[in-house]
Amino acid sequence: MAPAFERVAVIGVGLIGASIALAARHDANASVALYDADPRVRERARALKLGDAVFDDPQAAVAGADLVVLAVPVGAMAEALEAAAPALKPGVVITDVGSVKGAVVEALSPLAPPHAFLIPGHPIAGTEHSGPDAGFATLFKGRWHILTPLADARPEYAQAVDRLEAFWRALGANVERMDAQRHDVVLAVTSHLPHLIAFNIVAMAEDLESVTESEVVKYSASGFRDFTRIAASDPTMWRDVFIANKDAVLEVLGRFSEDLAVLQRAIRWGDGKTLYELFDRARRMRREVIEAGQDTPAPNWGREN
Amino acid sequence: MAPAFERVAVIGVGLIGASIALAARHDANASVALYDADPRVRERARALKLGDAVFDDPQAAVAGADLVVLAVPVGAMAEALEAAAPALKPGVVITDVGSVKGAVVEALSPLAPPHAFLIPGHPIAGTEHSGPDAGFATLFKGRWHILTPLADARPEYAQAVDRLEAFWRALGANVERMDAQRHDVVLAVTSHLPHLIAFNIVAMAEDLESVTESEVVKYSASGFRDFTRIAASDPTMWRDVFIANKDAVLEVLGRFSEDLAVLQRAIRWGDGKTLYELFDRARRMRREVIEAGQDTPAPNWGREN
Repeated sequence: MAPAFERVAVIGVGLIGASIALAARHDANASVALYDADPRVRERARALKLGDAVFDDPQAAVAGADLVVLAVPVGAMAEALEAAAPALKPGVVITDVGSVKGAVVEALSPLAPPHAFLIPGHPIAGTEHSGPDAGFATLFKGRWHILTPLADARPEYAQAVDRLEAFWRALGANVERMDAQRHDVVLAVTSHLPHLIAFNIVAMAEDLESVTESEVVKYSASGFRDFTRIAASDPTMWRDVFIANKDAVLEVLGRFSEDLAVLQRAIRWGDGKTLYELFDRARRMRREVIEAGQDTPAPNWGREN
Repeated sequence: MAPAFERVAVIGVGLIGASIALAARHDANASVALYDADPRVRERARALKLGDAVFDDPQAAVAGADLVVLAVPVGAMAEALEAAAPALKPGVVITDVGSVKGAVVEALSPLAPPHAFLIPGHPIAGTEHSGPDAGFATLFKGRWHILTPLADARPEYAQAVDRLEAFWRALGANVERMDAQRHDVVLAVTSHLPHLIAFNIVAMAEDLESVTESEVVKYSASGFRDFTRIAASDPTMWRDVFIANKDAVLEVLGRFSEDLAVLQRAIRWGDGKTLYELFDRARRMRREVIEAGQDTPAPNWGREN
């Protein structure tokens, strides 16, 4: 089968960018050009032979590319596209891997040349590790990849979306299309809020004077440990996510806090009935996750292997 | 080596009680008598041959026992001991497995006969499953077991604590001794608050009108899934934990909510510096958990197996 894209440029060589580079060469029969703003990362990318070429200049990396993937933190997307834009060839497909889509659409739409097709995307994949050394070719296999196409009526745009979908399928992902705003609410619930809470509880435990850090660490297996795992995620990426998805995160965070206040009150007043009913209801969701085949023997915050 | 206790009675045959029964026979060379208030559970215990005998009456179960283990929810401890007390033999050691210790000490101290040695305890072990069928002999291997001895100056009491410690070591546990109040604060941070938050976020997601339950389930691998895992825990047990450990839970919950409010404000005002600093700080705790050897390849909320 002909490759969906013959020449792929990846801007940003962290965990996701490195994994895309490896997978695109291995599974999508593409030649891969790489660029990262950090010279040390470019050096690692060369040493690890992540792509066919690693460029010191973003325009050199994207020149001639059929697909440009922006794999930088959400807050750095605009700068990354701006730096590469003059060298983009007509008909190029531009996509990204940001965890927020509304803000990315807003930032990138004015910067993409009219002859390009901007199709934002988000792979629901990752590990707790970051950087070029963390990448591996099978990261996207069996995982969801969400595309949030723009409201662009050109038939060529629809074809470009199909090609991008074929690319991600070649990498092993299950592809879904969704409106950017809806994506941001769904991910605020399933990913952003869980991460925010994990960061918060870990930082809080560090502050407690009444319990030593060593005690928290020692008994962390009783629940706390998995919060520390999630809190190992890249702080720059997450800072950008929360700021970029402010509205949806504040909405679900508000509901979370309201509900928590109800539980707090039930504990204070010894209201066992309210506690039991909520805990029992939460079990239903668990059964649905298992029935949907979304469970694994190793819980890992969506970070396979 | 002589067994620490020749005859062990286990009151309450859920996951923990069944596992103690299996492990006591297998690893501690003890004969095990069982009782559960629920006749269906007793029937399962017989069918599964969990103990040497399953009694329909608590006093028959504890008669002649050297060690009585109360393996019932915290709220049912007093009733369980009261029902068995008249048949307890002089010198018997009474322990429990409740996740809260201050409230258990308060409930059981007045009920234990003067000729008995009450030594509360808490195994930091479990799975997301409950009931007699969920038990297995290796549940406690390599896990912490916390004993919270009373302020009892009798030399016989100190000897009884040593024997109980030997029993748990025979089952494979690492035994620690700790003051009951301190236990309750440490566990509020490392276990009770994480569970409360997990229950809350799962129940909240079920309530959102803007996102369908199927979407939450579909993308649950992005973080949410592990909250559903923890929320599968036994609701009766957890209701009792929160009510019994009210003071410590409200204290850490108050701090959690305060800190979350700071993050909420930082998100609202786009204060990336505050977010980054907190996320970065949280990573330090993660490194300590790894360095302490408390991490496993499979995060599982402390539920090995």
